[in-house]
Amino acid sequence: MVKPISVGLLGLGTVGSGVVKIIENHQDKLSHQVGCPVKIKKVLVRDLYKERGVKIDAHLLTTDVNEVINDPEIDVVIEVMGGIEETRRHLLNALRNGKHVVTANKDLMALYGSELLTVASENHCDLFYEASVAGGIPILRSLVDGLASDRITKMMGIVNGTTNFILTKMCKYGAPYEEVLAEAQALGYAEADPTSDVEGLDAARKMAILARLGFSMNIDLDDVQVKGITEITEEDLNYSKRLGYTMKLIGIAHRDGDKVEVSVQPTLLPDSHPLASVNDEFNAVYVYGEAVGETMFYGPGAGSLPTATAVVSDLVAVMKNMRLGVNGRNAVAPQYAKRLKSPCEIFSKYFLRIHVKDQVGAFAKITAVFAEHGVSFEKILQLPLKNSELAEIVVVTHKASLQDYEEIFQKLRDLEVVQEVKSSYRVEGDGQL
Amino acid sequence: MVKPISVGLLGLGTVGSGVVKIIENHQDKLSHQVGCPVKIKKVLVRDLYKERGVKIDAHLLTTDVNEVINDPEIDVVIEVMGGIEETRRHLLNALRNGKHVVTANKDLMALYGSELLTVASENHCDLFYEASVAGGIPILRSLVDGLASDRITKMMGIVNGTTNFILTKMCKYGAPYEEVLAEAQALGYAEADPTSDVEGLDAARKMAILARLGFSMNIDLDDVQVKGITEITEEDLNYSKRLGYTMKLIGIAHRDGDKVEVSVQPTLLPDSHPLASVNDEFNAVYVYGEAVGETMFYGPGAGSLPTATAVVSDLVAVMKNMRLGVNGRNAVAPQYAKRLKSPCEIFSKYFLRIHVKDQVGAFAKITAVFAEHGVSFEKILQLPLKNSELAEIVVVTHKASLQDYEEIFQKLRDLEVVQEVKSSYRVEGDGQL
Repeated sequence: MVKPISVGLLGLGTVGSGVVKIIENHQDKLSHQVGCPVKIKKVLVRDLYKERGVKIDAHLLTTDVNEVINDPEIDVVIEVMGGIEETRRHLLNALRNGKHVVTANKDLMALYGSELLTVASENHCDLFYEASVAGGIPILRSLVDGLASDRITKMMGIVNGTTNFILTKMCKYGAPYEEVLAEAQALGYAEADPTSDVEGLDAARKMAILARLGFSMNIDLDDVQVKGITEITEEDLNYSKRLGYTMKLIGIAHRDGDKVEVSVQPTLLPDSHPLASVNDEFNAVYVYGEAVGETMFYGPGAGSLPTATAVVSDLVAVMKNMRLGVNGRNAVAPQYAKRLKSPCEIFSKYFLRIHVKDQVGAFAKITAVFAEHGVSFEKILQLPLKNSELAEIVVVTHKASLQDYEEIFQKLRDLEVVQEVKSSYRVEGDGQL
Repeated sequence: MVKPISVGLLGLGTVGSGVVKIIENHQDKLSHQVGCPVKIKKVLVRDLYKERGVKIDAHLLTTDVNEVINDPEIDVVIEVMGGIEETRRHLLNALRNGKHVVTANKDLMALYGSELLTVASENHCDLFYEASVAGGIPILRSLVDGLASDRITKMMGIVNGTTNFILTKMCKYGAPYEEVLAEAQALGYAEADPTSDVEGLDAARKMAILARLGFSMNIDLDDVQVKGITEITEEDLNYSKRLGYTMKLIGIAHRDGDKVEVSVQPTLLPDSHPLASVNDEFNAVYVYGEAVGETMFYGPGAGSLPTATAVVSDLVAVMKNMRLGVNGRNAVAPQYAKRLKSPCEIFSKYFLRIHVKDQVGAFAKITAVFAEHGVSFEKILQLPLKNSELAEIVVVTHKASLQDYEEIFQKLRDLEVVQEVKSSYRVEGDGQL
């Protein structure tokens, strides 16, 4: 019998349990593809005696990470424990010990991806991280292999299931943010402290990873502009619906020439856009390539088994490389030096909702501010506000630079007739660039 | 300078021209990934002097296939000429000469895929065919690599752009089939002889390829049950809309235990199904895996540059393998012997539209036929027909076996009260199995 490939697992939580289940349930398919069986040799856990959702031999468990990363018989280390600094040290040690690494850790890859990939390459080791973005959707591999020949110019992602669940419910039932957040927490779609999700940080990490790979450029997490969903109101959703838009938390990575922008923010999409019908906790990444045009990859963004599918598919890739003796030799360093767009090079349409004093000439004063910056309107709604001396103006602009937009925003707030700029969102076109 | 990799092209039509353009325009990215340049050394054409949509040195063109497949300097043969028997001989010769092959030819791969893959493997050559299914969507690679660890149980595909364009327009504008077909022909979305598209044969070839790969089983084209879109009427579309369904030409490949079914037929999908909003000439493949759950891959199914993207991405894969010296070593033979479901093992819901004589007890006689086979109804509509002695009955059944359904269908036609069974379609659930 052929010698099995040995795996060490760091972590046995939600994703880790899924990994154990898939390796067990799909052993036939795995062996068939790789030509030898795969077995889990050691599992790092925090508590040896905790009840677990998966059956595993107690003697495989350890609380000492060295029993995994220093075991000469272990070929591949799978990291599903989360965390950043300590986990980084473990994986660097594992790679220096010649272990291939598969990780689902987006925080780690967004912050230390370049370093880890470099060390992997120096040690002729594979380092794969498909599960770190969009769970069960094989998006990283599609960017690298499936669209290998194309020049990717734009990626738009719904890459956080929690916020997509919240926005879907808010749109569908007209419920306020706090109420839906509480429901999401009760259902386990949102964590007790939801900050990282609702403030867009989780999505930003994934967009940094996507942009780095899709644009072949060392994008850092700090390069991603981020705005979360906590300030979205029912009024905003009503207006967007009325104007034919759907509100989503969208990560945008856009390349123009040799410069890029990466951001995460609540965005209005035309109802006809493929991303507009991605609902509930589902994720999707829309990719625009110069030659291929529009493509979209849709699926579960999280969950034990979907995420574990991505992890074990990475493991299969490592094992195939082991069989061929080519580990660590397919990694490609970034092709381009990082060049970010300045605010005068980032163009978009904008939705603004403004409360103005209901007096003669108010609207003219507002349009004058936009006109000064050469920005015109695509859509305008003006309505008196009930029980108020104020009127509500909603406009969707034609394309404006971020610099112009920010100056306009500031000037509007300073106008005497403007009581408040209630909200403002980026608006995307219908699938074209 | 590193020696470039030499490519021979068979065919310089729509897709061939796209391949030439992409290799030229994206040379930087290709070289960066592979570590050496790629050049086109010879191109087989039928007519040396024809005007072409792409600039190419006249001395690269030849009308003699041997100048391509017997040239010892050519490493990779890209086949985009179409055709079956002659093309098969060329590719077998190329493989026996040690050339790697990339093809976009679904007809060839559906009929002779097993033979060609075997010969490729015997000669340590790569044979890739991503472009043969769903043009620019990297679906084959996603099945093989991205979902490598999962057990795929169901694939549903909108894999023919022509019929999807026609059905989208029929639904949207209530226009009859013949009219929309003529429009599609005028726009170049349908060929002068549209048989292969509208009768479902083109989709059947792609489903055979998908099923073979997804289920790791030697599915033949003859194993695919096929029904086209030519008999769909405006009435059918109106009723389906009214009942909350969208009509699509759907290829279904479904595995239960160790048996499979593969078919192509007009199918009613709930409006909420991810495939229901795939419109116009776009393609999409919905994949259900045991662990990952629902995923969907969306994009352009045809066209010069999208299809060429898939071809050149395959070329990149071949070139990476050349650099690593591992060509022909990643191919995996089918894991399972072919086992097809019998008609009593294929289950589905059905839509039937029946014209009955408008007399007392007519409906009871019809329901009795269904009851005999233990099949009950999910939805029923009965309406008098204008200017007629007839009534129209539309039912959607609960799940029935194909065998029961066919017997019911025959018995209904024989009933004295039934004037005609006007139409009948398969109905799918909302994303679940």
